Amino acid sequence: MHSQKRVVVLGSGVIGLSSALILARKGYSVHILARDLPEDVSSQTFASPWAGANWTPFMTLTDGPRQAKWEESTFKKWVELVPTGHAMWLKGTRRFAQNEDGLLGHWYKDITPNYRPLPSSECPPGAIGVTYDTLSVHAPKYCQYLARELQKLGATFERRTVTSLEQAFDGADLVVNATGLGAKSIAGIDDQAAEPIRGQTVLVKSPCKRCTMDSSDPASPAYIIPRPGGEVICGGTYGVGDWDLSVNPETVQRILKHCLRLDPTISSDGTIEGIEVLRHNVGLRPARRGGPRVEAERIVLPLDRTKSPLSLGRGSARAAKEKEVTLVHAYGFSSAGYQQSWGAAEDVAQLVDEAFQRYHGAARESKL
Amino acid sequence: MHSQKRVVVLGSGVIGLSSALILARKGYSVHILARDLPEDVSSQTFASPWAGANWTPFMTLTDGPRQAKWEESTFKKWVELVPTGHAMWLKGTRRFAQNEDGLLGHWYKDITPNYRPLPSSECPPGAIGVTYDTLSVHAPKYCQYLARELQKLGATFERRTVTSLEQAFDGADLVVNATGLGAKSIAGIDDQAAEPIRGQTVLVKSPCKRCTMDSSDPASPAYIIPRPGGEVICGGTYGVGDWDLSVNPETVQRILKHCLRLDPTISSDGTIEGIEVLRHNVGLRPARRGGPRVEAERIVLPLDRTKSPLSLGRGSARAAKEKEVTLVHAYGFSSAGYQQSWGAAEDVAQLVDEAFQRYHGAARESKL
Repeated sequence: MHSQKRVVVLGSGVIGLSSALILARKGYSVHILARDLPEDVSSQTFASPWAGANWTPFMTLTDGPRQAKWEESTFKKWVELVPTGHAMWLKGTRRFAQNEDGLLGHWYKDITPNYRPLPSSECPPGAIGVTYDTLSVHAPKYCQYLARELQKLGATFERRTVTSLEQAFDGADLVVNATGLGAKSIAGIDDQAAEPIRGQTVLVKSPCKRCTMDSSDPASPAYIIPRPGGEVICGGTYGVGDWDLSVNPETVQRILKHCLRLDPTISSDGTIEGIEVLRHNVGLRPARRGGPRVEAERIVLPLDRTKSPLSLGRGSARAAKEKEVTLVHAYGFSSAGYQQSWGAAEDVAQLVDEAFQRYHGAARESKL
Repeated sequence: MHSQKRVVVLGSGVIGLSSALILARKGYSVHILARDLPEDVSSQTFASPWAGANWTPFMTLTDGPRQAKWEESTFKKWVELVPTGHAMWLKGTRRFAQNEDGLLGHWYKDITPNYRPLPSSECPPGAIGVTYDTLSVHAPKYCQYLARELQKLGATFERRTVTSLEQAFDGADLVVNATGLGAKSIAGIDDQAAEPIRGQTVLVKSPCKRCTMDSSDPASPAYIIPRPGGEVICGGTYGVGDWDLSVNPETVQRILKHCLRLDPTISSDGTIEGIEVLRHNVGLRPARRGGPRVEAERIVLPLDRTKSPLSLGRGSARAAKEKEVTLVHAYGFSSAGYQQSWGAAEDVAQLVDEAFQRYHGAARESKL
């Protein structure tokens, strides 16, 4: 390990991995520290393995200008990846909504090819819709691809459950906090605004290649997201603040019926029995009241228990010499983690550069 | 693997491991299949690493005659283990309650040595109490001890997330279902009565050797459980149906204040700042409305999606020949998993013997 600036990335979901990859390509020495690693494709205690991971904006330009910028940048990145098989075109995606608000002012019509309104005859009763070509990635495989790219650049991975920031700064010049929901329970971050949005889906084996997103019935959000490998993710649910990791059988029936109505080709014979179920999934989207947090923060270590109630050791024993460190936050992306990942990681890398310039002399030259 | 009766134990928490050990000692060929294994001491998706694991009944004899039997048998087992260091005496344990009901009719006064009432002067204001000598085990280390004993007898462990019973019966003559909360989401078990009871605790470094259980204030349940290794578990919470895995900072303050009042020796200087916090823990006790389920069930495979809504594959494709198999249930032990484990495992082994006699010819002779 040469004497480069050492960055520890806390969290090995899509945000942590993307940030780490951009930093490693910029020449930083990167060490990824996480409880859940990319090979943990069955772990329910992080969100990345469960995402539908297609590119579908959820906010208007006015509500989420940063998010729109990240999404645009990630879209371009994924287009570059299509030839490698790590991303897949979803031609003729259909998006249905209850009203115009649900179509977000069509702000991404110049990003997604072949964007046009759908005639009402091609929409569910009472709904309006648009069609466009978008992209999807296979969530677990995409993370494993990012991990392989990192390993080629000498980045290291360590499985460890960090419960206090002090543990992450051990041997690091700077830490990137990509801990998703973990941000609520790590001493020194203590973000009570972090909250889950529960998602239940059914993984189906089907040749269906058409993506459909239907938010026209608020009581029954539904989506069909094909992904590389002949699998389709049928969803879904958006349980704000719901931590329940068990599979709800009634939700299974609602999802399968609604998705079958939207696209009978998910079934081998057009019936619910004809749907080949591979697996039932429940994952917790790492959301945050107030939206994603991408910013740098200066922190004094050791932590003070009056400010960080979860800090370890004795509240009274502050023997260790105080030092100030930089923490770059990157969490709270909710449903949009994958589609904002590359753009957000670019901002993270810029914040890291700035912090090193400001507090540690010159930053690493970029090798991008 | 010789041609013995092959039992697959689904779940590697204290119930699964104890059942597996008794079966292995009886000469069965045992294979443990689980998502979480004994070395996963930081995994929040199973309960066993987080338990306080001291012996304290929660039910009266009339409400829980089976549970009392299991507890008595486990107590005897743990007494045998004290010389090995796998269990530890908690002399002079204090138990406080709001009223006589809370002392469960003193049914275990002849099991725990030195059982006697406490004068009110030694109880919190308005509470009544008893003292007795009981036992505790170090939860993660006890499970690792059971795992080592199993490996000595040739039992095998496999990390796999099972989502449908069919996957567990692959190559097994009989399956023991020790999946705790997993029982709610595995096709073929589908038990909607399984529910979590959330527990938050603070792991403290302290020489304190006195165990205190205080249920005298329903709004603030509190306990101090020393365990082998100079650690003390301060608790706690009983959130029925609460799946929240994050650490609540207000709960931390309540637990530390209440436990400090109960026993100032948990702090190095009698103040909250003087308490040396090692870690904040949140675990989900695997409870079940209606109490623990320890019974044998005959199941027809492949599963039928009309009866098991979570079953995989196509609802319509029942090509595979039907067969009947035996599933022995052992889950739903809530807060009492450790203290009922050995007794319940003895019942499980008897159910397995009976099933083999009834459906597979002679059972294995016991090597106990």
